[in-house]
Amino acid sequence: MAERLIVVGGDAAGMAAASQARRRRNRDDLEIIAFERGHFTSYSACGIPYWISGLVADREQLVARDPATFRESYDIDVRIRHEVVAIDLNRREVIAMDLDGGTEVREPFDTLMYATGAVPTKPAWAHTGGAGVFGVQTLDDGSALREWLDADPPPRQAVVVGGGYIGVEMAEALVLRGLSVTLVERDEQPMSTVDPDMAQLVTDAMRGLGVTIRTGVQVTALSERDGRVCEVVTDDGPIPADVVILGLGVRPNTALAEAAGLPLGPTGGIRVDRRMRVTGVPGVWAAGDCVETLHRVSGMPVHVPLGTHANKQGRVAGINIGGGYATFAGVIGTAVTKVCDLEVGRTGLRERDALAAGFEFVSVIAESTNRAGYYPGARPMTVKLIAERPSGRLLGAQIVGWSEAAKRIDTLAVALWNRMTVDDMTALDLGYAPPYAPVWDPVLVAARKAVDALAPR
Amino acid sequence: MAERLIVVGGDAAGMAAASQARRRRNRDDLEIIAFERGHFTSYSACGIPYWISGLVADREQLVARDPATFRESYDIDVRIRHEVVAIDLNRREVIAMDLDGGTEVREPFDTLMYATGAVPTKPAWAHTGGAGVFGVQTLDDGSALREWLDADPPPRQAVVVGGGYIGVEMAEALVLRGLSVTLVERDEQPMSTVDPDMAQLVTDAMRGLGVTIRTGVQVTALSERDGRVCEVVTDDGPIPADVVILGLGVRPNTALAEAAGLPLGPTGGIRVDRRMRVTGVPGVWAAGDCVETLHRVSGMPVHVPLGTHANKQGRVAGINIGGGYATFAGVIGTAVTKVCDLEVGRTGLRERDALAAGFEFVSVIAESTNRAGYYPGARPMTVKLIAERPSGRLLGAQIVGWSEAAKRIDTLAVALWNRMTVDDMTALDLGYAPPYAPVWDPVLVAARKAVDALAPR
Repeated sequence: MAERLIVVGGDAAGMAAASQARRRRNRDDLEIIAFERGHFTSYSACGIPYWISGLVADREQLVARDPATFRESYDIDVRIRHEVVAIDLNRREVIAMDLDGGTEVREPFDTLMYATGAVPTKPAWAHTGGAGVFGVQTLDDGSALREWLDADPPPRQAVVVGGGYIGVEMAEALVLRGLSVTLVERDEQPMSTVDPDMAQLVTDAMRGLGVTIRTGVQVTALSERDGRVCEVVTDDGPIPADVVILGLGVRPNTALAEAAGLPLGPTGGIRVDRRMRVTGVPGVWAAGDCVETLHRVSGMPVHVPLGTHANKQGRVAGINIGGGYATFAGVIGTAVTKVCDLEVGRTGLRERDALAAGFEFVSVIAESTNRAGYYPGARPMTVKLIAERPSGRLLGAQIVGWSEAAKRIDTLAVALWNRMTVDDMTALDLGYAPPYAPVWDPVLVAARKAVDALAPR
Repeated sequence: MAERLIVVGGDAAGMAAASQARRRRNRDDLEIIAFERGHFTSYSACGIPYWISGLVADREQLVARDPATFRESYDIDVRIRHEVVAIDLNRREVIAMDLDGGTEVREPFDTLMYATGAVPTKPAWAHTGGAGVFGVQTLDDGSALREWLDADPPPRQAVVVGGGYIGVEMAEALVLRGLSVTLVERDEQPMSTVDPDMAQLVTDAMRGLGVTIRTGVQVTALSERDGRVCEVVTDDGPIPADVVILGLGVRPNTALAEAAGLPLGPTGGIRVDRRMRVTGVPGVWAAGDCVETLHRVSGMPVHVPLGTHANKQGRVAGINIGGGYATFAGVIGTAVTKVCDLEVGRTGLRERDALAAGFEFVSVIAESTNRAGYYPGARPMTVKLIAERPSGRLLGAQIVGWSEAAKRIDTLAVALWNRMTVDDMTALDLGYAPPYAPVWDPVLVAARKAVDALAPR
């Protein structure tokens, strides 16, 4: 008789695992059931801001593979709108609720793949204020927001609470739709995913785009009129709003896991080993935004909810479930984003992370251009490097610039992954032609500056 | 009394060396004289095609630092239009000709920096044909060509001989200026700096641009009328032409070096050690397009004339002349170019290079997109990887694609520099956001495909 794999959560990590397991074990050997509480499988949550702005026309474009494809091409029994409400590790069964029919089903499993993703941070005040308050986490969230924005008359004053990637991307999306947008950030500056000196460039760009930025401001409540949000109340006065976006980050979605007794780590994510097996729980695997993972530079566990890790981790889990061997190598915190035409990339540790990890370091900021200075379209590009003292080992890097800046962080990410020193980096053979770089690539300029900063005076 | 450094050749390598030496040793310690036979110092030869096309408006934009700057800010006695005609290693002096005055000067040296660059390959037929035949190597070449193109009436039919980087870039530049352009290539395909399967994409793009491409055709002579070129004679019939561009590659400019007894290597370039000292010749250094260098993957000497290496090598030589310590780490053959909107990048070994070096390998080609498939402006991107069998070590990589494709070769260049295997590469933490990449970056897609190709069947 076939073994049975049950997948809890049908997005990137869960379906990557299911697909890889199926690739190695056919139906007679492994039956696969995947429960997904939403309407969609394997969609790009990262694409939601671009669908909201209208850059991406149809919601369906964000769906990589729909349930029908998984059923037909992968022989995976995908059950959407089914929420797993309990996992019984002793009886080795899950209890799932059919959200449309209202009925409950019990399904036994031999192997469990836990991939419930993350849940948005939602403080108490976010539950006040009536309709018009949205997270931007699932396609269903996005659909609800699109509907609200498409109303007649449409909302005109948006407040985005939180200045991380989603907050910044949503602020831009709403400006593109013609709304007046205020971004409220509790800290000194939005975009704290980079150091303050680099984040300042992003703040300037967003202001240039017309976004009102209120920093050091704490939201305390939302006010409603006729059941609709009308005002964001803060410790610095009220801000009128007819639509509110919550961009306060996410935490691992572990309610079910905790109830079932799966171990959580210090970040609140599920603890897994290098093969994505839940630590100490035979036959149970986990991957994606619900787990914590190893940061290769700090050596500490981190929670980095990002589709690219979810896909890689799901693939690793699936290969192992399928009888193969794979390990997840950890992350180094590479991320890129776009604010209007301004591009931002980061990898490794920020200064505050390096301090927290106990490193001594120097940091340098080098100004250069994305192309040869004389080539049309040459624009400023700022590269920041953080290097351990005295070893010179690269610990982190950040880039802010215009056209073709952000993805250059990959060059630095691969250098960092390989534990290169900034001295070694000055010798790198990088591509040079006037449309792409000055004869000294911005990465090399920054590495040289870091070498100078490290030299004993 | 101050020692004296004489620099032969005032472009990238020579002036980088002079500047670095000056940075470490002041005038009382080191006198520096630089002879340059042309009108310019430290200019971007790579920028000439963009000046010819009109994308770059002024010749002066291509000059990074002019002789006056070197004299005033660096205290370097730059003598332009002075050609060194002999080097006497026994008497330790050079003889230079003032090309404008016609007089000869003798200058003694303690240390010599040889940086004469490269000379264009010019077969016997290239000396026939009268006026209207141009190389594209120096700013003076570029000036002469601009003048010819600006004549009234202007030339209308251009033939570019040779399909390397310069040939391809010049073909595009002349099309942009409205000329009818034929590119003549002796081999099966232009752009042989990448493998034929990748070069085909470039050929297709150039044809789309309106360039007539004649492959497998050998030029045998040029015909002239009234002292001006009128026809390119080939083994496949004549091609009318009122301007001819020579893009047949370059070889190390070593005439002076040979006469002086400096050692040449198997590539025809000057042999230098890791510090850029001419092998076995005390007090004499060399850098740039006139030297041969180590290819880090094949382990063999290569001649790679490129401004980025010239600058790095010159800097290394100058640090050493200045009393510091630096070595040149070698090259891995990274290069990028642009044909209209098509971008081409390469690093490491091509298939033919890998064969010549004795490697066993697999090669894979992976199709992907530069952005998330649903994001506006997503365009195809083709990544080819060559990996040693059975180790999986990356040996070479090539990218052809549209917007933001070429510089991604740097990601692969850094992986290759660090001797990564394709298996290790699948784990890389690269930047992901819909405007910049699919959730599986094209580099990761290609690495996974290479892993599959390496797996024992």
